[in-house]
Amino acid sequence: MVRKIFFLLIILFLFASCKKSETHIAPSSETNKSGITSDPLPSWNDGVLKKDIIAYVEKVTKEGSPDFIPVNNRIATFDNDGTLWAEKPLIQELFAFYRVKKMVEANPALAQKQPFKAVLEKDKSYFEKGGDKALIELVAATHTGMSEDEFEASVAEFFKDTKIPGKETPLRNIRYQPQLELLKYLRANGFKTFIVTGGTIEVVRGISEDFYGIPKEQVVGTSFKYKYDPIKNVVQREPSLDLFNDKNTKPVGIQLHIGQRPVFACGNEGGSGDIAMLQYSQGNKYPSFQLLVNHNDSIREYKYQEKDNASLNAASKNKWHVINMKDDWKKVFAGE
Amino acid sequence: MVRKIFFLLIILFLFASCKKSETHIAPSSETNKSGITSDPLPSWNDGVLKKDIIAYVEKVTKEGSPDFIPVNNRIATFDNDGTLWAEKPLIQELFAFYRVKKMVEANPALAQKQPFKAVLEKDKSYFEKGGDKALIELVAATHTGMSEDEFEASVAEFFKDTKIPGKETPLRNIRYQPQLELLKYLRANGFKTFIVTGGTIEVVRGISEDFYGIPKEQVVGTSFKYKYDPIKNVVQREPSLDLFNDKNTKPVGIQLHIGQRPVFACGNEGGSGDIAMLQYSQGNKYPSFQLLVNHNDSIREYKYQEKDNASLNAASKNKWHVINMKDDWKKVFAGE
Repeated sequence: MVRKIFFLLIILFLFASCKKSETHIAPSSETNKSGITSDPLPSWNDGVLKKDIIAYVEKVTKEGSPDFIPVNNRIATFDNDGTLWAEKPLIQELFAFYRVKKMVEANPALAQKQPFKAVLEKDKSYFEKGGDKALIELVAATHTGMSEDEFEASVAEFFKDTKIPGKETPLRNIRYQPQLELLKYLRANGFKTFIVTGGTIEVVRGISEDFYGIPKEQVVGTSFKYKYDPIKNVVQREPSLDLFNDKNTKPVGIQLHIGQRPVFACGNEGGSGDIAMLQYSQGNKYPSFQLLVNHNDSIREYKYQEKDNASLNAASKNKWHVINMKDDWKKVFAGE
Repeated sequence: MVRKIFFLLIILFLFASCKKSETHIAPSSETNKSGITSDPLPSWNDGVLKKDIIAYVEKVTKEGSPDFIPVNNRIATFDNDGTLWAEKPLIQELFAFYRVKKMVEANPALAQKQPFKAVLEKDKSYFEKGGDKALIELVAATHTGMSEDEFEASVAEFFKDTKIPGKETPLRNIRYQPQLELLKYLRANGFKTFIVTGGTIEVVRGISEDFYGIPKEQVVGTSFKYKYDPIKNVVQREPSLDLFNDKNTKPVGIQLHIGQRPVFACGNEGGSGDIAMLQYSQGNKYPSFQLLVNHNDSIREYKYQEKDNASLNAASKNKWHVINMKDDWKKVFAGE
């Protein structure tokens, strides 16, 4: 089971974002420097969706209203890849490749050793043929077998060093400006905002405060096993997956880390990763709001759909709100 | 390994607090209604320890000081049993017994079935002889095999129904008043306060906000495996331990849930459960503060020490601060 999950994880890392030709990372040319406005969501086009979001927030924060939600229960969860920032290229994949590169620089002999060689040569067939064993070795080598302090230093270094391939634009510029405004708007109304991501928890924690104003402890993600070493006084990262936080495991991560159902949940179509989280949120005893990003903007971002259309079908069936990026967002990316 | 941990866990539940004769739960007769005071810690006696706590908080929150800690890194972790509230009687044990009673009420046939029978008859020998199997059955039956919503309802019911045995005083009255003031004082200075407990995470989350002003997501504790059921749209509690959050596992729970070392950590001597957490905190790159409750107050609370004195020895060796309850606390328990 664990081997299976490792396999899926790495397949995700390696091959999820192969349609690089579609990349449109440059922020929209629109700027938003028109001064202070009373509009809490200036990068959202005026329309039904924006109105619905504001109406929901207003009704659940109005004391005395039957829809009122106590502050302690105003939990908002956001997926990250494809929801808060673009998932093409997949940052987690860039990170894995970065780690391989750094490790080979430190120890050039690795370049001739598998699975490093296959990564450097972009040899997908190696992983297809090698199966679990090769993939587990790669994840173990790049993400574990070191202390937390060391791993977090490598994450910080990655975000400092890395630009979007071929774009020379910092990674922070693939954040969606309308979502930054939504996070801020929710927080201004007493919501606590969480990231609930399939990405490795410490990779996302490395930038959550700086990129989204979300503290480390409000990030729920894929985690590896840890072991405390009392002699070195460090937490070691073990080469074994603890929680693969995707699909039906997202409610599990939410229970473990947050301890209650969200009232506001936002994910995206593309990999069916957020259906369970949105459904779980909808089971809340308080009025809840589900939001799904539809990547239908081939000009400013990308257009990609699931083969089985599962997320959009679930949205339609369960009356979730859909962000049609092309129509609902005035601006897509955070300014440079 | 898991069976071993289950065993230890239940042994803890069942037999940890057998010296009931020492119980002194009644709050101290002193009240603290003298109006508003500038003293942030009125239930702490004036002395070196109180002075040291205040001096630490002042130095690390002073902008421009070399000891300044950014707000995002002001993480304070507190053990619960024996640190924030008394651990005699052990509330987790009362909860397990309460669950057995309720389950037998709902299904009287269970009273003749082991391991329920042994609990009802206080037959310790049954568990001593039956070993892991009987204990795992008991934990599985009382803590798992139901949805989170059902379990949390039973926790709420327990705290509503239960009084300290033989005292007719609500459970909230075994909280330590000086610690409530310390939590509040730290929060007023930008610290985020967390509970890091060996107790079951949802049991403590059931009262963390009400008893301590600590939201659910800031509780780190012992957790069982969860599984999301998309048909019922609930998280199910599985009969398998996920994390036994004690001793060397506390830094693991801290990494998983909080994602950084605390700068302020407080635990207690009695079961050596907090040595690792305090040591881990001391490895912080920022100035840190370690605090250990010494249960040396046989009049107002209890006097109990570890056989090997491990926690107090570690405190002495590592220059941790020790709360000698008898001398440092003006008042012990929160008002009735």
